[in-house]
Amino acid sequence: MSADGRAAGPPKAILFDAYGTLFDVYAVGTVAENMFPGRGEALAALWRDKQISYTWLREICANYMNFCSVTADALDFAAEALHLNLDARQRQALLDAYDYLPVFPDAAPALATLRAHKTPLAILSNGTPGMLSSLLGASGLADSFAAVLSVDRVGHFKTAAAAYQLGPDAFGVAPADLLFVSSNAWDACGALWFGYRVFWINRRALPFERVGVTPDGQGSSLSALVDWLA
Amino acid sequence: MSADGRAAGPPKAILFDAYGTLFDVYAVGTVAENMFPGRGEALAALWRDKQISYTWLREICANYMNFCSVTADALDFAAEALHLNLDARQRQALLDAYDYLPVFPDAAPALATLRAHKTPLAILSNGTPGMLSSLLGASGLADSFAAVLSVDRVGHFKTAAAAYQLGPDAFGVAPADLLFVSSNAWDACGALWFGYRVFWINRRALPFERVGVTPDGQGSSLSALVDWLA
Repeated sequence: MSADGRAAGPPKAILFDAYGTLFDVYAVGTVAENMFPGRGEALAALWRDKQISYTWLREICANYMNFCSVTADALDFAAEALHLNLDARQRQALLDAYDYLPVFPDAAPALATLRAHKTPLAILSNGTPGMLSSLLGASGLADSFAAVLSVDRVGHFKTAAAAYQLGPDAFGVAPADLLFVSSNAWDACGALWFGYRVFWINRRALPFERVGVTPDGQGSSLSALVDWLA
Repeated sequence: MSADGRAAGPPKAILFDAYGTLFDVYAVGTVAENMFPGRGEALAALWRDKQISYTWLREICANYMNFCSVTADALDFAAEALHLNLDARQRQALLDAYDYLPVFPDAAPALATLRAHKTPLAILSNGTPGMLSSLLGASGLADSFAAVLSVDRVGHFKTAAAAYQLGPDAFGVAPADLLFVSSNAWDACGALWFGYRVFWINRRALPFERVGVTPDGQGSSLSALVDWLA
C-alpha cells in the first residue's frame, strides 16, 4: 500500500464497464436517424440520459428493475418527449440494436495487449446477463474476459456499493487491488468512492465530475489505458 | 382509504418542492446571459442538470454534502464543460442569484387560495435552511408556510425515503394523508414510491417519467393544482 492507503503495484485484475466504455451506445443514433432523419442523434442522447437517470432513481428508491426493462422505458420516454411516433417495429429494431452495439475500434487491440500481460480482465456492468451475452457474442471479445459480472445478480445498479462489490467478490481481493475502467464519469466517481483504483476513458473531452474525487489515471481511449499501465 | 389503499378526502397538509416548483431555477440563465451572450441558457440548463445528478450520485454512494456546496460544484462543472471562463466575481454573482431566484407568477395567488382553505402548507426541499431562508425572505411567501423542511436536517437528498419522511414526521400523519407537489418529474416519482399523494406541475409540457408510477394529478401550473383540489 502507498502512503495514502491505496494499493501500489500492478492491479490484480482489471474491470471494465461495458456501455460507453467498450461498446458505443450512441451508435443507436444511426439506426434512429434512418427512421427519423435529423433526429437520430437527439433520440440516442436522450435515451441514454434517461436510461442512466432511471437506474439512479430506482437505486435510490429501492425499486430495482432489470436494465433491459429500464432501457425500453427510457426509449419510450425519449421518443415521446421528442414527439417521435415509434411504431412497434421501429421500437423493437432500436431495442435490438442495443443488443448489438458496435465495439469501439480501440477495444480489441487494447484488450489483446492487456491479456498478454496475464492480468485477468472482467466486465462489471448494469446490463443483464442476456444483454451482455448478446453484446459479447457479436463483438468477438468474449474470450477476452475471465468474468462477466452483471449487477442483475445483486439487484442494485451502479453506483451502489453492492454493485461494485461484485468485483472484489469475484477475484477475492480488496477493491484497491482492482483497477476499474469506465468512460462514464459518474461510474468512475462511484468506483473511486467504493475504493477501486480507477482509469477514466474520457472519450468526449469533458471535464471530470466535481464531486471531490479524481481518477488515478485518464485518457481519451483504451489505448491510453495500455500506455498508462505500461 | 380508497379501494386501492390510498387515502381519500382532502390532504391533511400540502408539501411543496421549492426549486423549479415555486422558484424558477432557469432564471439564473438571464444573469449568465449578461456575462456570456448566447450561452446563458445552456449554462443554466447544464448547471441544473449536474446539480440534480450530483445529489443522486452522492445519495447512492452515501456521500452527502449540503446543497449549497453541490450547487457550487455543479456550476463549476457546467462552466468548464461549456468552456466559459468564470472569474471569481462572476461565479459569486451566479451563486448569489441562486439565493434570490424569482417566484413563478402562479405561486402567490395559488398559495393564497390554498391558505384560505386552512390546509397547512409546507416546503420540503433539497436546499439548505440558509438557502431556503434567503429564497423565502426575498419572495414575500414566507408567511404562507407552516413549516420549511430541509433535507439537510437528515443528510439525505430526495428521492431517498429519509428525505421524504420529513413530511410525515412534521405533521404526524401517514404519507398518504399528505399531498406532495413538484414540477420535477423525478421528485414526483420518488414521492409516489414513498407513498405520498402527488400532484405534478408539468411546467415544460413533458411526458411523465416511465418508471411505473403515475401522479394522482397534474397540470401546467400551480393554478391547475388549485382547480384540481377544488
